[in-house]
Amino acid sequence: MIRLYNGLVMPMTDGCAIVPGEVWTDGDKIALAGSAEGLDAPAFEREIDLRGGLVIPGFKNAHTHSAMTFLRSYADDLPLQNWLFDKVFPLEAKLTPEAVYAFTRLAALEYLAGGVTASFDMYYHREAYANANIDMGFRTVICGALSAGDRLSVAADDYAKFNTLHPLIGYRLGAHAEYTADEALLRGLAELAHEYKAPFWAHNSETRSEVAGCFERHGMSPTAYFDSLGLFDYGGGGFHCVWFDENDMDIFARRGLWAVTCPASNAKLASGIAPLAKFAARGVRVAVGTDGPASNNALDMFREMYLACVLQKLSLGDAAACPAENMLYAACSAGARAMGLPDCDSLATGRQADLAVIDLDRPNMRPVHDAAKNLVYSGTRDCVRLTMVAGRVLYEDGEFHVGEDPGRIIAEAERFTKEICEQ
Amino acid sequence: MIRLYNGLVMPMTDGCAIVPGEVWTDGDKIALAGSAEGLDAPAFEREIDLRGGLVIPGFKNAHTHSAMTFLRSYADDLPLQNWLFDKVFPLEAKLTPEAVYAFTRLAALEYLAGGVTASFDMYYHREAYANANIDMGFRTVICGALSAGDRLSVAADDYAKFNTLHPLIGYRLGAHAEYTADEALLRGLAELAHEYKAPFWAHNSETRSEVAGCFERHGMSPTAYFDSLGLFDYGGGGFHCVWFDENDMDIFARRGLWAVTCPASNAKLASGIAPLAKFAARGVRVAVGTDGPASNNALDMFREMYLACVLQKLSLGDAAACPAENMLYAACSAGARAMGLPDCDSLATGRQADLAVIDLDRPNMRPVHDAAKNLVYSGTRDCVRLTMVAGRVLYEDGEFHVGEDPGRIIAEAERFTKEICEQ
Repeated sequence: MIRLYNGLVMPMTDGCAIVPGEVWTDGDKIALAGSAEGLDAPAFEREIDLRGGLVIPGFKNAHTHSAMTFLRSYADDLPLQNWLFDKVFPLEAKLTPEAVYAFTRLAALEYLAGGVTASFDMYYHREAYANANIDMGFRTVICGALSAGDRLSVAADDYAKFNTLHPLIGYRLGAHAEYTADEALLRGLAELAHEYKAPFWAHNSETRSEVAGCFERHGMSPTAYFDSLGLFDYGGGGFHCVWFDENDMDIFARRGLWAVTCPASNAKLASGIAPLAKFAARGVRVAVGTDGPASNNALDMFREMYLACVLQKLSLGDAAACPAENMLYAACSAGARAMGLPDCDSLATGRQADLAVIDLDRPNMRPVHDAAKNLVYSGTRDCVRLTMVAGRVLYEDGEFHVGEDPGRIIAEAERFTKEICEQ
Repeated sequence: MIRLYNGLVMPMTDGCAIVPGEVWTDGDKIALAGSAEGLDAPAFEREIDLRGGLVIPGFKNAHTHSAMTFLRSYADDLPLQNWLFDKVFPLEAKLTPEAVYAFTRLAALEYLAGGVTASFDMYYHREAYANANIDMGFRTVICGALSAGDRLSVAADDYAKFNTLHPLIGYRLGAHAEYTADEALLRGLAELAHEYKAPFWAHNSETRSEVAGCFERHGMSPTAYFDSLGLFDYGGGGFHCVWFDENDMDIFARRGLWAVTCPASNAKLASGIAPLAKFAARGVRVAVGTDGPASNNALDMFREMYLACVLQKLSLGDAAACPAENMLYAACSAGARAMGLPDCDSLATGRQADLAVIDLDRPNMRPVHDAAKNLVYSGTRDCVRLTMVAGRVLYEDGEFHVGEDPGRIIAEAERFTKEICEQ
C-alpha cells in the first residue's frame, strides 16, 4: 500500500469540493481518500509527503490520436485541406506497427508529465498502440474507426480481443465519421451495438462542411443520421460536436450521449467553437479531449480546459459563461464515464488508483483563493508533481518511471519519424 | 564570463532562424552568440551544458499589472462589471507599498519560471514595484498610468526618477486610458512627450463600450483622440487594441506605434479578439502581453503566443492565419523595442544578456520538425530550463536564484493577500 499524506484531496465524489486528508492505495485501487483520523495505519510500502499539494483524479483525454506525435509541427499554419491531403494522409500511409508503437510511447510520456492517466485513442495499428500503452503502464480505451472498405468483422474481433487483453486496455465500437463510412457498414455496426448492448462513437460535426455534406447525402445531420440507424440505442457519443443544431442537442440529451470537446484542435484548424454553454443548459454531457498532436499540437489537458472556458466567454460575450469547475470536472471525472471507465471517475474507495498530484507551491498557483479556478485558469503542466496509473507511480518530480529510459523512447520515436518523413 | 554550449541558438537577429553555436556572456552583456569556431576561449567563470537545448532572447511581457497576483482566482467567471467594481477596485484601494512589493516579487518568480526576462508594468505604488524587481534582479519598464485627479508633475517626477534609478528599471509616459483621463491632463502629457521627445502609452480600445463612449465624448476613437492631442508625435502605442477601425490602424502604421495584444485577458473577460492578421497586413507593429493575473490569470507568454495565433485562425476561419514564428518574434524580440529596451531584442554581441534556455528533450517538444512552431503550439513553461536577466542566472532546473528563499516570497505574498482580502 502507498500513502499520500500532508496535503489536500479533491476526490470528485462531490463536484470539485476539496477535503483535507490522505489518499491510500492498495494495489491498483484506492483504499482511502479523505480523513484518516481514527483509522489504524496499515503497513505502507511507501509514504509520499504531498507537501501541501492537491490530489485529483487524473485527467482523461477523451479524444486523441496519440501516435500522431510524429507529425507535431510538421505542417502548421496551412489551410485544412492542404494540411490533411498533402501532408498528413501520405505520411500516415507509410506507418508501420513498430512506428505506431514508438510514437505512442512518446505520447504516453507527454500524458504522464501532464497528469493525464487515460486516453480514448483512435488510430491505425491498434495492437501496436495497445501494447505501447501496456508497456508504459498507461491506460487506454481504443475507439474503433471503421470506414468504407473495412470489414465489419474487424470490429467484432477487436471488441472481443481488446476488451479482454489487459486490465489497462478497453475497446469501444466506432466509425471514423459519417463522411468516410458506407451505410452497410454503419448498419452492421448498429447490429453489433445491439448485440453487445454497446455504445457507439464517431467524429461528429467537426466542420461546417462535414455537416453540410451529410445533409446533402442523407437529408439530415450526422447525429440524426447515426441515430436513425440505431447506432446510439446503447449510448456513446461524438468527437468534436462543433456544428450541432437544436435537434442534435436534443438527441444527445435524450439518449445521454457524450459530446467530447476538442477546443485547441478546433481553434487551430479554424473549425469553430463547440456550444458548450448550450450543452450545459440542455443537459448534454461533456468530456474533454486534445485530438491528435498533428493538429493540436500538444497533449495538454490544462490547455484544453482553459480554452474550453475562455472560448465560451469570448463567443458568447459573457465573462460568466462556462465556469472553470465544470471543465475541471469534465476533464477528470466525467471523461472517465464517457470512455467507459467508471472505475476511474473519482478517488472513492475501491476505484482505480489513477491520480495526479498538483504542486500548489508553484508561483502560478499562488495564492489559492480557489484551487479549481487556479487549475483551469493559471495551471500548467509544470504544476504536476506526480502521476499514478493503476496504483503505479509513473511520473514524479520530473522523472519518468516507465521501465525504460525516456531518452531512448524519444530517440526511437525520432528514428521512425525520420524514416517516415524524410523518405 | 559565462559560456552556454552544446546546443542551438535563435539569436533573433534574422527572424526565428536557428544556428548551431554557443552563447557567451560578459557581465550583463552578450559577448558572443553563434559559432565560436576559431575563437580563443576566454577564462569562463561558469560553463553550462545546454544538452541540446535552445537559447532564445527572453520573453518580453509588454503589458501587465504584475502585483495583481493577489487577486488571481479571486473573482473569476463573473460579468466584467461585477468583477471590476465589486471585486477588484475595493481591494486595490487597500493596497500598501509593502503589499505591492510582495505581490510583485511573487509575479517575478512566475516570470522567471516561464522564461520571461522583462515586463512593461502599469500599477500603483511604482517605487515599491521598482524595488521589488531590482531586488529580484528582474527587468521592468514602468508605464505611467495617470488618470483624472492626478497631478501632471507626477509624470515629470517619475520620468526623471525611474529612468535613472537603476539599470534594470525604465519609465515611459502613459495615461491609464481615455475613459479615466481628463483632457487637461492629456494635453499636459502631450507637452511632456514633446519636451522629452518621448513615446506615449495607454490602454486603448480594449472593449467595444470603451470605444463607443469615446465616440460619444469626443466624436472619434481613443486612437484618433490621443493622436489629435499630439500624444503620439514621438511614438508609443496602446494596450489591448481589440476594437480598432481602419483609421486607428492607419494612425498606428503611419506613426510606427505598437499594438500590444493581450489575447488571454481579452478572451477571459469576453472583450474580443484583436485583428492581428489585419495589423500584419497593414504594417502595424505588434508586441504581446499577459495583462494582470487578476484577469488572465497566469503570467505565461507561451499561452499568449498560442492564443494569439489560434484566435486569429478561428476568427478568420483560416488555419493559415497568423503563423507561429510571427508571434514568437513579437513575444521575444519586437516586444523589447516596443517597451523601450532595444538592447534586449536579440542575442547580438553587446546586447543585454536577457535570455531563456528551452529544454528540447521534454516529450511535448519532440520531434523537432520546426522549433519555432513547437515553442508556440506545444511549448509550455515546463520546457524552460534556465532564465537569465542582465547576465545573472535567476532560474535554473526548477530552482530560483533570486537572493531569497522562494517559499518565503510566496508566504509574504500570501500574508498580505489575507490581510487585504479577508478584512
